[in-house]
Amino acid sequence: MRDFLPAEKAHRERLLAIIRESYRAHGFDEIETPVAEDSDRLHAGLGGDNEKLAFGIQRRGLTHDDLQAAGEPLDLVDLGLRFDLTVPLARFYASHRAELPAVFRSIQLAPVWRAERPQKGRYRQFVQCDIDIIGEPGNRAEAELLIASLDTIDRLGLEGAFVRINDRRLLIGMLETLGFPPAEHDRALVTIDKLDKVGQDGVVEELREAGFTAAAVDALDAFFHRPQTMEFLTFGERAIRRALPEGADDAVVRELAEIGEAVMRARGADPAELLLQFDPFLVRGMGYYTGPIFELAHPSVSYSLGGGGRYDGMIGRFLGSDVPATGFSLGFERLVDLLERSGGTEDRAIALLHDRDVVLGDLLALKARLVAEGARVRLLVRPKNVKPALDALAADGFTHFAFVTAAEPDSVDLRPLG
Amino acid sequence: MRDFLPAEKAHRERLLAIIRESYRAHGFDEIETPVAEDSDRLHAGLGGDNEKLAFGIQRRGLTHDDLQAAGEPLDLVDLGLRFDLTVPLARFYASHRAELPAVFRSIQLAPVWRAERPQKGRYRQFVQCDIDIIGEPGNRAEAELLIASLDTIDRLGLEGAFVRINDRRLLIGMLETLGFPPAEHDRALVTIDKLDKVGQDGVVEELREAGFTAAAVDALDAFFHRPQTMEFLTFGERAIRRALPEGADDAVVRELAEIGEAVMRARGADPAELLLQFDPFLVRGMGYYTGPIFELAHPSVSYSLGGGGRYDGMIGRFLGSDVPATGFSLGFERLVDLLERSGGTEDRAIALLHDRDVVLGDLLALKARLVAEGARVRLLVRPKNVKPALDALAADGFTHFAFVTAAEPDSVDLRPLG
Repeated sequence: MRDFLPAEKAHRERLLAIIRESYRAHGFDEIETPVAEDSDRLHAGLGGDNEKLAFGIQRRGLTHDDLQAAGEPLDLVDLGLRFDLTVPLARFYASHRAELPAVFRSIQLAPVWRAERPQKGRYRQFVQCDIDIIGEPGNRAEAELLIASLDTIDRLGLEGAFVRINDRRLLIGMLETLGFPPAEHDRALVTIDKLDKVGQDGVVEELREAGFTAAAVDALDAFFHRPQTMEFLTFGERAIRRALPEGADDAVVRELAEIGEAVMRARGADPAELLLQFDPFLVRGMGYYTGPIFELAHPSVSYSLGGGGRYDGMIGRFLGSDVPATGFSLGFERLVDLLERSGGTEDRAIALLHDRDVVLGDLLALKARLVAEGARVRLLVRPKNVKPALDALAADGFTHFAFVTAAEPDSVDLRPLG
Repeated sequence: MRDFLPAEKAHRERLLAIIRESYRAHGFDEIETPVAEDSDRLHAGLGGDNEKLAFGIQRRGLTHDDLQAAGEPLDLVDLGLRFDLTVPLARFYASHRAELPAVFRSIQLAPVWRAERPQKGRYRQFVQCDIDIIGEPGNRAEAELLIASLDTIDRLGLEGAFVRINDRRLLIGMLETLGFPPAEHDRALVTIDKLDKVGQDGVVEELREAGFTAAAVDALDAFFHRPQTMEFLTFGERAIRRALPEGADDAVVRELAEIGEAVMRARGADPAELLLQFDPFLVRGMGYYTGPIFELAHPSVSYSLGGGGRYDGMIGRFLGSDVPATGFSLGFERLVDLLERSGGTEDRAIALLHDRDVVLGDLLALKARLVAEGARVRLLVRPKNVKPALDALAADGFTHFAFVTAAEPDSVDLRPLG
């Protein structure tokens, strides 16, 4: 877990404010849930491997007898820090459905916690930026998610991002066509998900060694090596069909293509612009996805900058009745690292270097006047050596400075910094 | 712990943005620390009674043997959720001092957690808004804190707030003058702190029953009943002296009066305006205060809206060398309840009630155009009964609506809502 110093914190808050405003403009509404959820709910099988990474909060009022009686550490825990924002959203929606619009578009910009071994780019506390649309079964929801997210990426100042798209139903259809029996699907997808890392031959080899149906693995191998499989065309019905085996579900292909058309039109995109890319091997880790899935990519980085998909079955687990839902999560920490810091948001930040003997009331009346005029103002005692102080102020984003003396506390000769 | 629905969340974020911007203007810099601190640090005696309320996070990788070997529940805990922002700030400053300005003005707007029994106005997760000035020994720091906080209160739209001020050194001086031996000071202050609740006679009675030095209690009783003791005058040196027993420390009185003069001048306050009030019986609970202490009050409510004070000894506990510090905390949750919700921040929020058969690309191109023009836009399928839908949209802060049909998806006849 990290401390954030002023420059980094200002950068993060600036990006969060842009994301918040952008998603609000697109009709989404921000909500907030507590950082802790009931431990039972966090370990209900909806969080995949992340469930193991939940920090457990110890029950209050434990006695020595409780310690002795506990069979395992989790017996002493009743709450846990959330490991994602999806499980809390499902619980939130189940609790508050009657108070929300029939189609509810949520924003959550909030930290989550995972007890991972800290490593470069992985943190134990990190911010997720999720939008979700609950209650809309059709692909209008996916189109809205993608348009809002791409617009948000624009507003953040990141150019050249694009979205890889697939559909869980097409993935399953492909496995069926290739001859994988249903019992092998989930495990086969775990291996196919490694395609980016190990390549086509690596995937085939791993499947073979793990004893998957040999004829199906052969068929996948052949399919991988069709010339058109990895030749990603401009997104559209034709490109999707070309990239899939024969016999793909027409309705699903048409649905995906419609999302693409709507996104391209809403963005006023040139047909040749790479904005969406159909990727028949995009898997997304979580088992709860049921329809279209997406991943935000950027040419400058090999990792994804976000992703999401449709998870129609999940909220029903909390509510008892099925509710359609789809979501998109921006990889906030990665965006923070990728986007340039542009310092504070003030046009006019003034440092007042004052002598020690300036009357307190004079000094603070001057500061108050400048603040009232819209400036950000920092006081500091005038040091003997002024140059390094001015350099530090410029580095902190200050734009002007002035000396203040006891003799003339009202006359401020502002000079530009840096 | 609470969920926040869209209207409440928007209200909270609007207030936080105002507070953040206001304190930044006054030269403070926002930082952030992780929600969890080492358990040892949370239980180091700096948090007073709050230490008992820390939620403990269970150690990772505990075995059954660890359970058996544990003497008490805390043995199984290595981290805890912070119960305030002061302990984390002290740890932060000790870690990052070299990277911060010599006088560091911090903003922290962040949640804290306390395992209290939930009751009206008390929550297990709540937001604190702290500003602190570290590295400035003189009363310039207190004047800056108060001016920034009062300006922030103004920007939030709360009129009539004022600050009660005292100084720990004057309190101790008063106890000495009245004849309380040093060993009785801390406990006597705990009782005097109840003055608001139990009144002067209640305080005297409690002190008598608890066996405090009888002559001192008599002297306090007499002092309570001087006519001028509870007659709070406009803040200033004369008012402070009148409200104290003879022999109060001149330098401290002068320091406090200077803070008052600077605040009044910087605010351009009318001398008759109630902005500051010297309260010789203001105690503030925490034992770590060493100098001026303050509490933000408002005529409409009996509880305080914030407070703070100087705590020069505390950061030294982490750093090994003494560092002067003073802070002010706004009672965010109380302000949220007190201030009127003014809905979203958008001037123009448009609901598009569309027929089901509008082509997806047409609909989303229209939405994108309105968003690009600066509106916030929500889509919804046109219901059979439009009136309740329009009422709900108006309640959600939408200002305009339009119907969208498949035949004319581009022609939008915007009408005002509500």
